Amino acid sequence: MPQHRTVFFISDRTGITAEMLGHSLITQFEGIEFKRITLPFIDSQEKAQLVAERIRQTGEVDGARPLVFATFVKDEIREVLRIPEAHMVEFFETFIAPLEAELGKESSHTVGKSHSIENFHEYNARIEAVNYALAHDDGIKPADLDTADIVLVGVSRSGKTPTCLYLALQYGIKAANYPLTPDDFGQPGLPKPLQAFKHKLFGLTIVPERLSQIRSERKPDSRYASLDNCRFEVAEAEAIYRNAGIPHLNTTSKSIEELASTILHKASLARRIY
Amino acid sequence: MPQHRTVFFISDRTGITAEMLGHSLITQFEGIEFKRITLPFIDSQEKAQLVAERIRQTGEVDGARPLVFATFVKDEIREVLRIPEAHMVEFFETFIAPLEAELGKESSHTVGKSHSIENFHEYNARIEAVNYALAHDDGIKPADLDTADIVLVGVSRSGKTPTCLYLALQYGIKAANYPLTPDDFGQPGLPKPLQAFKHKLFGLTIVPERLSQIRSERKPDSRYASLDNCRFEVAEAEAIYRNAGIPHLNTTSKSIEELASTILHKASLARRIY
Repeated sequence: MPQHRTVFFISDRTGITAEMLGHSLITQFEGIEFKRITLPFIDSQEKAQLVAERIRQTGEVDGARPLVFATFVKDEIREVLRIPEAHMVEFFETFIAPLEAELGKESSHTVGKSHSIENFHEYNARIEAVNYALAHDDGIKPADLDTADIVLVGVSRSGKTPTCLYLALQYGIKAANYPLTPDDFGQPGLPKPLQAFKHKLFGLTIVPERLSQIRSERKPDSRYASLDNCRFEVAEAEAIYRNAGIPHLNTTSKSIEELASTILHKASLARRIY
Repeated sequence: MPQHRTVFFISDRTGITAEMLGHSLITQFEGIEFKRITLPFIDSQEKAQLVAERIRQTGEVDGARPLVFATFVKDEIREVLRIPEAHMVEFFETFIAPLEAELGKESSHTVGKSHSIENFHEYNARIEAVNYALAHDDGIKPADLDTADIVLVGVSRSGKTPTCLYLALQYGIKAANYPLTPDDFGQPGLPKPLQAFKHKLFGLTIVPERLSQIRSERKPDSRYASLDNCRFEVAEAEAIYRNAGIPHLNTTSKSIEELASTILHKASLARRIY
């Protein structure tokens, strides 16, 4: 059984879809070491010929057939890559025909649609949300919170900033974030700047051991990163969430994508872009 | 022919993969108005039963079968949703079995793998890159540019910031950006802070009409947003790229995903995360 496989993600456009599909599939297989190679913009039969040759050679070196995850809307390019020396998974070809039948319509066979700018409004919503996240990162102007879709609350390095940015980039959500600092602890109720926006608050928490590990990457051997201090801060933060009845989420074993989509779902936020 | 269809993206985890793959398919069909509904975390047969009922009712209201794009690793949940009242596209089921045969291995049938934190190293690389992009947004400390993987150059609102953030979040690339301002124009050669890093520079340009439109959203009727000024700034920026031989890209009709993956490709950057 081969313990090593080379995986090619190939597309006539960016390859983003091929990567995502292939990645979500191969992560279902443990104990195999996958070497990933993305080859975007393979938009001519000539380029496809060169890729086919590279796949053959890779297979010989590996001693195992490479996996090829492809998204081609142009059939003539795809066919060049349909070689016995590879296990090919072709996304569009597999699903477009049944959809055409279901919808009673021909597909437009145009590349890269899903990642093109669909309209100016969506583009603006996205950029606006990104700029909003940047303007409200770790420093809140309470006046502006009126316009926030959601305000992420949590201690330093609990995952607020990347989650805000992902919410903005992926969903066009205006997410501000408020860092809980020792000044906020030991007080009754919510920190003052947040009191008027309780309905928009979403708390992030994290396992103290993990938080200490993350903070140590930045400030080794600091009180800030010490396990004792992390235990204290996390306990205080969670107390605030509980007492104020703020929905919250443990970020420890979640990726940024998972955090963002879980918050979108739990807070019932309406995404502005698709 | 139905001009309106409801599309469900359903998963036992975040639904991100179902959304992306489904979106890339339906964008191939023009002239149909798709109403999108994402239902993540459908992780029990009971929840699936409720979803199946909702799909049936939606189909009756629409007068057309809803499309269902699903990623379930648990067969028993998927089966509940395999109903004649919907056109179901199941991504895992379709490809996992052939892959198991090819790899001579059973898939682990675990959910959400592809968006889980695969290892602490990747997580750190990603967060580090995000923090780097934030620390170097529109304000460069030349000393730090040594550690940049790439430096995006362009006039205000040409797309630098969201592209830097996307490069960081998606690929773990440390991207700084340098805004070209009137001070940089009319000089011979590169702006001083950039001269030592010519090999890391990547220019963004944009159609002046579009730039004026984008800037007007922010500062209507300003000289900053005027078409004349946008024409001038873009022409000067492109002159800098040409004279210094800097690779550059027109962002006008590209999405952030396309920009990021195109730059990754053209600059031959090595991604730190998958």
